Amino acid sequence: MIIDLRSDTVTKPSKGMLDAMMSAQVGDDVFREDPTVNELEERLATLFGKQKALFFPSGSMANQIAIKLHTNPGEQVICDKYAHIYNYEVGGVAFHSGASCKLIDGHRGMFTAEQVKEAINPSEYYYSQTSLVEVENTTNKGGGACWDFQELENIKNVCKTNNLGFHLDGARLWNAMVAKYETTMQYGQLFDTVSVCLSKGLGCPIGSVLIGDAEIMKKSLSLRKLFGGNMRQVGYLAAAGLYALDNNIERLADDHKRAKEIGAELSKLSIIRKVEPIETNIVIFELNDGVDEAQFLNNLKEKNIHIIGMGSNKLRMVTHLDYTDQMHDKLLSELKSI
Amino acid sequence: MIIDLRSDTVTKPSKGMLDAMMSAQVGDDVFREDPTVNELEERLATLFGKQKALFFPSGSMANQIAIKLHTNPGEQVICDKYAHIYNYEVGGVAFHSGASCKLIDGHRGMFTAEQVKEAINPSEYYYSQTSLVEVENTTNKGGGACWDFQELENIKNVCKTNNLGFHLDGARLWNAMVAKYETTMQYGQLFDTVSVCLSKGLGCPIGSVLIGDAEIMKKSLSLRKLFGGNMRQVGYLAAAGLYALDNNIERLADDHKRAKEIGAELSKLSIIRKVEPIETNIVIFELNDGVDEAQFLNNLKEKNIHIIGMGSNKLRMVTHLDYTDQMHDKLLSELKSI
Amino acid sequence: MIIDLRSDTVTKPSKGMLDAMMSAQVGDDVFREDPTVNELEERLATLFGKQKALFFPSGSMANQIAIKLHTNPGEQVICDKYAHIYNYEVGGVAFHSGASCKLIDGHRGMFTAEQVKEAINPSEYYYSQTSLVEVENTTNKGGGACWDFQELENIKNVCKTNNLGFHLDGARLWNAMVAKYETTMQYGQLFDTVSVCLSKGLGCPIGSVLIGDAEIMKKSLSLRKLFGGNMRQVGYLAAAGLYALDNNIERLADDHKRAKEIGAELSKLSIIRKVEPIETNIVIFELNDGVDEAQFLNNLKEKNIHIIGMGSNKLRMVTHLDYTDQMHDKLLSELKSI
Amino acid sequence: MIIDLRSDTVTKPSKGMLDAMMSAQVGDDVFREDPTVNELEERLATLFGKQKALFFPSGSMANQIAIKLHTNPGEQVICDKYAHIYNYEVGGVAFHSGASCKLIDGHRGMFTAEQVKEAINPSEYYYSQTSLVEVENTTNKGGGACWDFQELENIKNVCKTNNLGFHLDGARLWNAMVAKYETTMQYGQLFDTVSVCLSKGLGCPIGSVLIGDAEIMKKSLSLRKLFGGNMRQVGYLAAAGLYALDNNIERLADDHKRAKEIGAELSKLSIIRKVEPIETNIVIFELNDGVDEAQFLNNLKEKNIHIIGMGSNKLRMVTHLDYTDQMHDKLLSELKSI
Repeated sequence: MIIDLRSDTVTKPSKGMLDAMMSAQVGDDVFREDPTVNELEERLATLFGKQKALFFPSGSMANQIAIKLHTNPGEQVICDKYAHIYNYEVGGVAFHSGASCKLIDGHRGMFTAEQVKEAINPSEYYYSQTSLVEVENTTNKGGGACWDFQELENIKNVCKTNNLGFHLDGARLWNAMVAKYETTMQYGQLFDTVSVCLSKGLGCPIGSVLIGDAEIMKKSLSLRKLFGGNMRQVGYLAAAGLYALDNNIERLADDHKRAKEIGAELSKLSIIRKVEPIETNIVIFELNDGVDEAQFLNNLKEKNIHIIGMGSNKLRMVTHLDYTDQMHDKLLSELKSI
Repeated sequence: MIIDLRSDTVTKPSKGMLDAMMSAQVGDDVFREDPTVNELEERLATLFGKQKALFFPSGSMANQIAIKLHTNPGEQVICDKYAHIYNYEVGGVAFHSGASCKLIDGHRGMFTAEQVKEAINPSEYYYSQTSLVEVENTTNKGGGACWDFQELENIKNVCKTNNLGFHLDGARLWNAMVAKYETTMQYGQLFDTVSVCLSKGLGCPIGSVLIGDAEIMKKSLSLRKLFGGNMRQVGYLAAAGLYALDNNIERLADDHKRAKEIGAELSKLSIIRKVEPIETNIVIFELNDGVDEAQFLNNLKEKNIHIIGMGSNKLRMVTHLDYTDQMHDKLLSELKSI
Repeated sequence: MIIDLRSDTVTKPSKGMLDAMMSAQVGDDVFREDPTVNELEERLATLFGKQKALFFPSGSMANQIAIKLHTNPGEQVICDKYAHIYNYEVGGVAFHSGASCKLIDGHRGMFTAEQVKEAINPSEYYYSQTSLVEVENTTNKGGGACWDFQELENIKNVCKTNNLGFHLDGARLWNAMVAKYETTMQYGQLFDTVSVCLSKGLGCPIGSVLIGDAEIMKKSLSLRKLFGGNMRQVGYLAAAGLYALDNNIERLADDHKRAKEIGAELSKLSIIRKVEPIETNIVIFELNDGVDEAQFLNNLKEKNIHIIGMGSNKLRMVTHLDYTDQMHDKLLSELKSI
Repeated sequence: MIIDLRSDTVTKPSKGMLDAMMSAQVGDDVFREDPTVNELEERLATLFGKQKALFFPSGSMANQIAIKLHTNPGEQVICDKYAHIYNYEVGGVAFHSGASCKLIDGHRGMFTAEQVKEAINPSEYYYSQTSLVEVENTTNKGGGACWDFQELENIKNVCKTNNLGFHLDGARLWNAMVAKYETTMQYGQLFDTVSVCLSKGLGCPIGSVLIGDAEIMKKSLSLRKLFGGNMRQVGYLAAAGLYALDNNIERLADDHKRAKEIGAELSKLSIIRKVEPIETNIVIFELNDGVDEAQFLNNLKEKNIHIIGMGSNKLRMVTHLDYTDQMHDKLLSELKSI
């Protein structure tokens, strides 16, 4: 039994999901004739109260194209210093959009409306023009932290006043909504564009979806083609998405519960300096200065437990739907024995 | 019975391919742990005698990243005025690579080594530096025409002398190789990078592969991530590719035979001015000046026959593995009755 | 006495121009406080009946920023295959604007409204969107040819119908207007943006100006700063421009007259196959196949006559305000003696 | 008498500089035939012990092209959060080079080798590759602060170990060298590329120069043409630069002395919370919370004293060679009377 907590992206489709995939009706999506992807896109658009949704082969592409939809070359995007779009998308904001990131020094990947206000560039001609605010919910590098919805509303007001776009990287938005009892409609009302991932918590093999109203999404199809994200019989992937929306959302609460139980156990260990507060399915903890991170990772590996380092002696575990009760018991008992 | 000859991309996986897909071993390819995609990549690299192959969600992405691998911003790519990379990839050469296309006025999408020589810019500092020659085989806009291999070798020599990269857009290379009795090893020896499509003639739902030696491919994985082409459990798609390599190549000869039979029938029609020579699975023909293209397309549509216009009164039919004997008989008889 | 006919850019300021420069009132143009550049910009805006003009260190920058003002990344610019923006600006259209050139196969750098219509891409999402038509008057690579104004008006109508911008690279527009008795107001009415050069025929040491209405020019100042074209006490250069507008326009007729006389002499030479029709100050001629271009250039050089080759056995001479009567007599007599 | 302390860029050429300009030998620099710019470039290359120097119309262009020389699209540049290239060059790093800035939270625009080490991205394929470290000396936004040379050497070692380029934005390097008794050779040895400004402290109307060895500068001429920075008879501007190198460097000590005297006076004012330590010619001070910045600026303006705000209630004065003894006495007495 291998316990793989490196990421919630390592899951494999369940029997039910695989059956849904295998029996999908498909067509050539480049001609926009795949009924299953069309159904998935319509369903997600409706869920968020928006006019349009578009399937993408990855969350990185969905985010990067959202940024392109909101900016012109030379402009600036406000985001947290922990933002996935800045840290883990290979410098895509500058590469694809020719835009700069104005990084806010936030708390666990989250910031305040006040900080946004201060980050907006003056309108003098020698400044890069600020055109977009981007947030991530939950925050990956911030340890699965969930934004306070009121603060998001405050930021939305700053965006309105300053004519800025507002994009949500919702790679793990499902986790946030389950943890905070929030709804897709709430998020749809707040943001101009939302990307959601079908692969992470929801367990699909491939796919993210970008959602927005018709005006802002006007060039999304052309941009997806430009980026090479237009695929053919994509219904096999979309069918997994539809299955996941039906079956895999509520159960995220189990992932969160287990993550908290892991955190509680880690907190008891003397070799661990700090466990970040756990709100969803991500557990980030720091080893004491003396402890050798590589040695620690290796010890777990020898017990078939796989987790990853995030740099600076921080380690990460992520619970997910392939992480079973049996694995959980084993992990907790191994942690107790350290 | 609907006869869809708009493109060879409209095919749906056969029972055998679907079984192969659904029983695939998968893993998280972002961690490079999907055994099936690894197998497909190794197999294609070996087939072409190259060190590395990488799976892509689309041929456009494979081509555009190949161009990026070969060029720096401000440089120039030599290709035919019919080239897919120039005409049908949304201006991607300029968008992604900041590079210009120097278009050769070739014949059916093909050109000569002599024309390449003339197209190379002088080395003065105010010219864009020429860095890549790109060819497409078979040529899409050129009606499925196949390159003369000797001419490709001549062009390769020009590339060597002038230190230019040489990329093959092999979206329909399988068709060319079957038609001309050529081998993957021949193409691997000639080109620095080759993209092949698994979707068109081979009938997979999704996927293209870029093939090259380790040095030129060094940044390909990072660029694929940057473009948003890194997917997770991609083995479902790769399994279709492996199945197609085993089962769907030789049979392309059938597509070619049928295309020629269609062409022969079209040539007899008085309303058709010209049928392009048919070498593979693409039939391009021109209506007489008096004939109303929309009306002609509509008449066929009413008989459940779907083909597409290419502009300038040119129409295109493409045969493929979902185009059956029964459909073929029906089509020929309908053409006779025009 | 050195006769330098390589280009009309080799001129040095006259005593009068130098006096005007050195007595210029200047200020810091980054703060927009240089009175002389402000005067020059206002004067040129007024001359063309436009709301705004902006000084640039080069025509390349003025053109490239015009293209950026008219396009978004991924879009397409229609221009002639001879266009300076495509051939001699180091691939800038792709580099700066991420845009492609759709090259028209025109006559001496000029084309028809009909050709523009055909060059516009269809609106399907997989095509690069056409957004700009660019023309050059006179045409440099076309041998100083002047456009037919009626044809420009026809093209303007195509632009209007198809919602395309219309930019004029007027590096040698002064020559065209003098040769054709046209006015700046005519050109201002036709084009959305016009770049004019103060250095070539007009004899200034440095400078081009981009002219357009306020809406299209809105981001021009910011883009000039972005490109590094914002300079400080630029009035010294602007003063030369004001002097040239007062003193050096009408006299271009002399350059044209001399160019025609040179052409007439060249036409008599048996070693010359063809002299392009001469409309302004550029003389392009072709040597017979047997004649060694390098040898020909060298023979002239030994007589202190400098001209340049354009490739393909074509040579170019350009008359200008530092080309005196004395030089002209000498040149004609040397040509007679070949 | 107007006292303009908004920037050291507002200076106008002295009689001596203007005479030097007017009597300059010039030529067409696009053909590389301007003897005066050639002399200036050779002189600066020699001063810094480098093989090549190139004249630019602005420091922004010199910096942005240096960044382009050091990076590929998608890569990352380490610099201070105060860096001119990030804050005041209109987002050029992303626009021109497709590169991101990794901002260090330094002290007065300066940082440590340790901070550089931490800022370097891991080499995993999903990170933007770090390729350049950029520093600014003196720091503009940091109030004219001078780097500790030993720390620059430490950073150089980090660059060597990690294969990073090292660029110096030396817009006010002359000030730093005069203040710290450092030499151009020292800076030439430490940095791969150095940009210096001829306009700010040195009093020229226009011009910056980029200096580096032949290998790194190989594409600089082509890139300058691409950016539109290739000008024609540029010797008039270069002559001012040569004059400034001979006459205007040592005297920067006077600017520094006056800046310190202004600072001493400001420190006595109760309405001022803080005056930044003054090392060169920039004085940055902060008004108390209660004080109205606009009112304060206006009061000075009414006395013909012009300074600028930097945001956050910070104000800036910059001394320069057009700031005379008489003006200095007037300013000090006005400050005393506040």
